[in-house]
Amino acid sequence: MALKAGDQSQAAMNGLRDKVLTVDTMNQCVRRVEYAVRGPIVIRALELEQELRQGVKKPFTEVIRANIGDAQAMGQKPITFMRQVLALCVNPELLSSPHFPEDAKRRAERILQACGGHSLGAYSISSGIQLIREDVARYIERRDGGIPSDPTNIFLSTGASDAIVTVLKLLVAGEGRTRTGVLIPIPQYPLYSATIAELDAAQVNYYLDEERAWALDVLELGRALRQARERCRPRALCVINPGNPTGQVQTRECIEAVIRFAFEERLFLLADEVYQDNVYAEGSQFHSFKKVLTEMGPPYATQQELASFHSTSKGYMGECGFRGGYVEVVNMDPEVQQQLQKLMSVRLCPPVPGQALLDTVVSPPAPSDPSFAQFQAEKQAVLADLAAKAKLAERIFNETPGICCNPVQGAMYSFPRVELPQRAVQRAQELGLAPDMFFCMRLLEETGICVVPGSGFGQREGTYHFRMTILPPMEKLRQLLEKLSQFHARFTLEYS
Amino acid sequence: MALKAGDQSQAAMNGLRDKVLTVDTMNQCVRRVEYAVRGPIVIRALELEQELRQGVKKPFTEVIRANIGDAQAMGQKPITFMRQVLALCVNPELLSSPHFPEDAKRRAERILQACGGHSLGAYSISSGIQLIREDVARYIERRDGGIPSDPTNIFLSTGASDAIVTVLKLLVAGEGRTRTGVLIPIPQYPLYSATIAELDAAQVNYYLDEERAWALDVLELGRALRQARERCRPRALCVINPGNPTGQVQTRECIEAVIRFAFEERLFLLADEVYQDNVYAEGSQFHSFKKVLTEMGPPYATQQELASFHSTSKGYMGECGFRGGYVEVVNMDPEVQQQLQKLMSVRLCPPVPGQALLDTVVSPPAPSDPSFAQFQAEKQAVLADLAAKAKLAERIFNETPGICCNPVQGAMYSFPRVELPQRAVQRAQELGLAPDMFFCMRLLEETGICVVPGSGFGQREGTYHFRMTILPPMEKLRQLLEKLSQFHARFTLEYS
Repeated sequence: MALKAGDQSQAAMNGLRDKVLTVDTMNQCVRRVEYAVRGPIVIRALELEQELRQGVKKPFTEVIRANIGDAQAMGQKPITFMRQVLALCVNPELLSSPHFPEDAKRRAERILQACGGHSLGAYSISSGIQLIREDVARYIERRDGGIPSDPTNIFLSTGASDAIVTVLKLLVAGEGRTRTGVLIPIPQYPLYSATIAELDAAQVNYYLDEERAWALDVLELGRALRQARERCRPRALCVINPGNPTGQVQTRECIEAVIRFAFEERLFLLADEVYQDNVYAEGSQFHSFKKVLTEMGPPYATQQELASFHSTSKGYMGECGFRGGYVEVVNMDPEVQQQLQKLMSVRLCPPVPGQALLDTVVSPPAPSDPSFAQFQAEKQAVLADLAAKAKLAERIFNETPGICCNPVQGAMYSFPRVELPQRAVQRAQELGLAPDMFFCMRLLEETGICVVPGSGFGQREGTYHFRMTILPPMEKLRQLLEKLSQFHARFTLEYS
Repeated sequence: MALKAGDQSQAAMNGLRDKVLTVDTMNQCVRRVEYAVRGPIVIRALELEQELRQGVKKPFTEVIRANIGDAQAMGQKPITFMRQVLALCVNPELLSSPHFPEDAKRRAERILQACGGHSLGAYSISSGIQLIREDVARYIERRDGGIPSDPTNIFLSTGASDAIVTVLKLLVAGEGRTRTGVLIPIPQYPLYSATIAELDAAQVNYYLDEERAWALDVLELGRALRQARERCRPRALCVINPGNPTGQVQTRECIEAVIRFAFEERLFLLADEVYQDNVYAEGSQFHSFKKVLTEMGPPYATQQELASFHSTSKGYMGECGFRGGYVEVVNMDPEVQQQLQKLMSVRLCPPVPGQALLDTVVSPPAPSDPSFAQFQAEKQAVLADLAAKAKLAERIFNETPGICCNPVQGAMYSFPRVELPQRAVQRAQELGLAPDMFFCMRLLEETGICVVPGSGFGQREGTYHFRMTILPPMEKLRQLLEKLSQFHARFTLEYS
């Protein structure tokens, strides 16, 4: 309650008083948000780097950040064509330079023509530059074997995260037992749990089957849904394919079953497909939810609501810093689609350099273009390297006693299961830490290797994992895997 | 409720059914959001542009979008130094080119050194690149006459909008009569009302005084607060200085009074200072809330909580598309500040090209640098041009019978008041439109001029306004003002 001005001024003069905004008075939904990929372990990694720079002696000489899918931070080079186009867009004076290939110049001119004032510095319309949305639609059509895509249904975004949050935001309604339930895989990418907490929706976990290479089982979806209906109103089903952190690539049969399930149970589908270019395992192939749904025919093709997300951050380009991405919505109610448009307009527009970059991703050089050969060589080199690193991680982990992992069929993470001795689990509990957090913290302190504990993604009770990217350069990855394997042996011995 | 699978499949086969997500089942807070700057009038403007391209005859040959502060879309050229640095960062091969000045190269190298993998394509830490936060802190210190700024209190963002939404999000708590009330000026920039609606907080209007050049009156703040306490718990006070859409520049005395008020009434202050470089009127000067608060000494300097926002989109650079910005927090509870950091980490990081651009804004070339002279000339030309256009708009509007406007002391908008004949008001009501929306729609249809009705920003009952940017090039602006003035005369005649 407000005091009278006189009393208050007096109180003020007497010195300190409570803040208006404290952890107790703040938004409690925000307070409940957790985001392990940048959580305490990463904060500690930053401190260690700082200490190393200050000359503090450590049992290692560098911190290796294998916690986040950040390819270029790990030394991966940008794709030349993409950066040429971007530089030309940023500084159009370079269009007269002989040092840029003709196709990069043509592309930059084409993008600039579509920008307000022919500049990346103008706002675009809120759903993104029309020309680029058209290029995205054509990309989707090529990817999906000619199934039509309408640019009207494509909304560019600030990375895929932004679009995922925005679509989830539309879906949240009700309170208590009627509030929106969102089904998410466990293990999951913690953007989902964080957003659900922030929006005060109900998180509904369905478990992926570790014994069957993290397969998605529709029976388990059914179990999760039935139990959830006692406490909330499930309305959305999130699927991550290829999987993050789990690296599985879903079969076409699995996707069909998920779509039938979503349709029968009246769930809005969110398909996180940002790793669609990252498929390594022989026999694995990426199938988009849009394509499968369309090929299943009516009523699925005509009625099942779907939002599919993609990003410039992953794939072979790894342009995380540009925050480019898009969502394609399928069978969305037209009035809701207008609401989506309106909601995006409040933030004005996605970053225009990221939009321009997305254009080069969805519309790479054609075989007749001067940049084609180099582009293809660079792209293939990255993807071949990732495939080799996926195999390497799988092999070394599975050779280590007490560690086992599924093949990394896609995406860019290994999510091995680790056995932790009972005494280590007890010690962790004494410290108030999740056992795999304790393991990962010790790993970081002793080796400089930064990985994220499985508890940050969710896992079956009593199992322990960590997520490690396969992005470090081959030789560094090999050393990292060997160090990690040796550390696990030491750790196990210490607590046995 | 779920039907049994068999029943559902049958229902499905029978044809169409309701969508899962409709305007009735969606998030009703989102549904209530309004954002006039990109509302129906802008959608109509886009349609008209389309029709013009298709050769449809209109009483005008182009649509002039004076609805949004988008300088480069109106033909303003980017600042050369900024784009040179950006191009070098995007494509570091250019560092060996003789066509770039040495200071631009040094700056690009410095930024790249601070990026993961020395690339704009890596994520930064969530609060933004440390080096750039340090440069922002030094900028603030110079701006505020040496008052210290701590980079730890600076968080880079995706334009200022992103930071404003994030801080408001922290502040929202409670329900019904205990829910957070947020005081905002009327007229306001509709990001505020939209965000308050989305977060289901209570909007508390305080009216700026049009008769006194849109001054902020603390008595009016008190009135608004007292009335609001009957229905919510006011916890935050938003101030926009220089004003949007109203263009006033607050005096130091006014800012002091606002700070005292906020302190006494226990309100968290949000100072939207994105137009801090845009001050034109003689005798007007920008004072930052941070500076005034600090100079007021304890208890204000040591206890009043404040968040101050800035952006790369406005000022003399007008780089809206890059979505650069920052917030500096002052006297924020350290635990809350950790929560802010966590919340930002879920979205990973602000766009790195926008961060790099921000660095050039807060740390422009020094007098000894080769780019200094050109940089200064370009900056001064833009600001002088804007000052002249501010005067022109004021003069022509005030010469027009039935239109009057306050001086545009700062920012980049004129917000004139228009008299509308009673019959026009009646006609608008018949059409279900706000009277000034009716006026602006007719203006658009007949002249191609796109401005935003005052009802989108809020105004005193029975008064009518519109917001028009002063960004079109001088000659075009003159024509626009004359056309607008003639249109108002015709419109008044028609409905008299």
